[in-house]
Amino acid sequence: MSQSLGYYQQRNNQQLSQWIEQQPFSDLPLIKAMKHGTLLGGKRARPYLTYITGEMLGVELDHLDTPAAAVECIHAYSLIHDDLPAMDDDDLRRGQPTCHIAFDEATAILAGDALQTLAFDILASGPLSHDGETQRVAMVKELAQASGASGMCMGQALDIAAEGKHVDLEQLETIHKHKTGALIRCAIRLGALAAGDKGLAVLPQLNQYADAIGLAFQVQDDILDVISDTETLGKPQGSDLKLDKSTYPALLGLDGAKAKAQQLYQDALHALEAIPYNTDQLEVFARYVIERNN
Amino acid sequence: MSQSLGYYQQRNNQQLSQWIEQQPFSDLPLIKAMKHGTLLGGKRARPYLTYITGEMLGVELDHLDTPAAAVECIHAYSLIHDDLPAMDDDDLRRGQPTCHIAFDEATAILAGDALQTLAFDILASGPLSHDGETQRVAMVKELAQASGASGMCMGQALDIAAEGKHVDLEQLETIHKHKTGALIRCAIRLGALAAGDKGLAVLPQLNQYADAIGLAFQVQDDILDVISDTETLGKPQGSDLKLDKSTYPALLGLDGAKAKAQQLYQDALHALEAIPYNTDQLEVFARYVIERNN
Repeated sequence: MSQSLGYYQQRNNQQLSQWIEQQPFSDLPLIKAMKHGTLLGGKRARPYLTYITGEMLGVELDHLDTPAAAVECIHAYSLIHDDLPAMDDDDLRRGQPTCHIAFDEATAILAGDALQTLAFDILASGPLSHDGETQRVAMVKELAQASGASGMCMGQALDIAAEGKHVDLEQLETIHKHKTGALIRCAIRLGALAAGDKGLAVLPQLNQYADAIGLAFQVQDDILDVISDTETLGKPQGSDLKLDKSTYPALLGLDGAKAKAQQLYQDALHALEAIPYNTDQLEVFARYVIERNN
Repeated sequence: MSQSLGYYQQRNNQQLSQWIEQQPFSDLPLIKAMKHGTLLGGKRARPYLTYITGEMLGVELDHLDTPAAAVECIHAYSLIHDDLPAMDDDDLRRGQPTCHIAFDEATAILAGDALQTLAFDILASGPLSHDGETQRVAMVKELAQASGASGMCMGQALDIAAEGKHVDLEQLETIHKHKTGALIRCAIRLGALAAGDKGLAVLPQLNQYADAIGLAFQVQDDILDVISDTETLGKPQGSDLKLDKSTYPALLGLDGAKAKAQQLYQDALHALEAIPYNTDQLEVFARYVIERNN
């Protein structure tokens, strides 16, 4: 899968780069900070999921570039804002200085803001497979609801509210279902929406798959924060511990967290069984989620 | 006009309140901060412009609530972020503690983020006059391009880049055309887009009107920062001076700035002459822009 992932990463980078370079005043720090926050590394897991879900349903790659770029803009903006001193106060991300370190706080706030806007601009303006605008509106709604106060932003707020408090497993799942799960689910659903009715028919199964790998992604993140070194991780090892954050290893022990990741992987595979298309790439991705080391 | 403005303010508040209360976890600081940033005062100039432009073109009020609420969400988010310590570092807004003072910085960043998202959610989900989704997509595109790196965010970035530097009149206009002008223009254009073809036919004239009052709005803001007291203004008087910001009074003198506002008012009236509908409310608003004292 690694070669294939690399292809999609490059394709997504090219798209993002084009969209950002279309903005006026391209020599201003704001535009450079937007590039810094999107183009320097990153796994591109969300756009990748949009691409492979859409491809599974027969959508041409050209018609998936738009939702894939939009979802990555939202992810990139959220990282820039999460890294700010008032939030997680991280200096390092993907082995590079975070946006507010490379530029300054004001520019980082604005770059995040403008990347969020760009996501919706892309959905409203970029090429899509169906001529009808219904699909476009459905995608805007999907992305907004996944990323705002009913999704990702709420997850970050719940996470902040939980800092330094005892959080049980159910609460931790609620946090992650919003904080990271919502956008991963959205990435997959955007790929399905691009396929029209064919995609709508398998949304329930894709939701199950998405919820399982979304949570698995976070469990594995928590595990890596304990076992990996800073260089492999691209950010300081042990930063969850530093922030007194609740994690799966803290609640379940390291072995318990690993077992949880395995269980979620099985749940994901189970969901795929009910999809009458070639789900190989989604299967491989689920395994990658729990086996990755950064 | 004041009674009429009051009516639209209340109508817009009710809409915003409903949208925000629909979010889950309504007792969390994030949701309270979103309310704080939208519902405590504010002139509602942008939604008002959407309403009166649409009404002039025969659109029912019920069909203008959606774009009016969306544009105010963008404005509210921009104020929350502009007030942050890393940006303008303001403690007071509309006579109330700013969002990061009433809550905390992390919550204020998130509340701004989530209000931006909500704007696009509203445009994708709220009631509109035409059944076709083309109008909705046009509005998303309009709002995104007015508020992102080609509009409002760029204006704020240009403003930051200009701090402490000599800025000539042309550069100052470029800053304000983006920073405040783009969203005011957008508010008017959203009202026109809600009228379908009838609105598209008068867009050029509305653009001229919008550009004139948008700039006049800023010129008057700069004048008020010099001549008004903190209580009337709802924010510290002289804060532009404190930040060493370029202003119209600084470049043109106070009388020169007042003459500039008058000229822009005449430009606005001139643009309205070419519109074959009852432009009374837009005329009254133009006068309000240059006569207001807060």
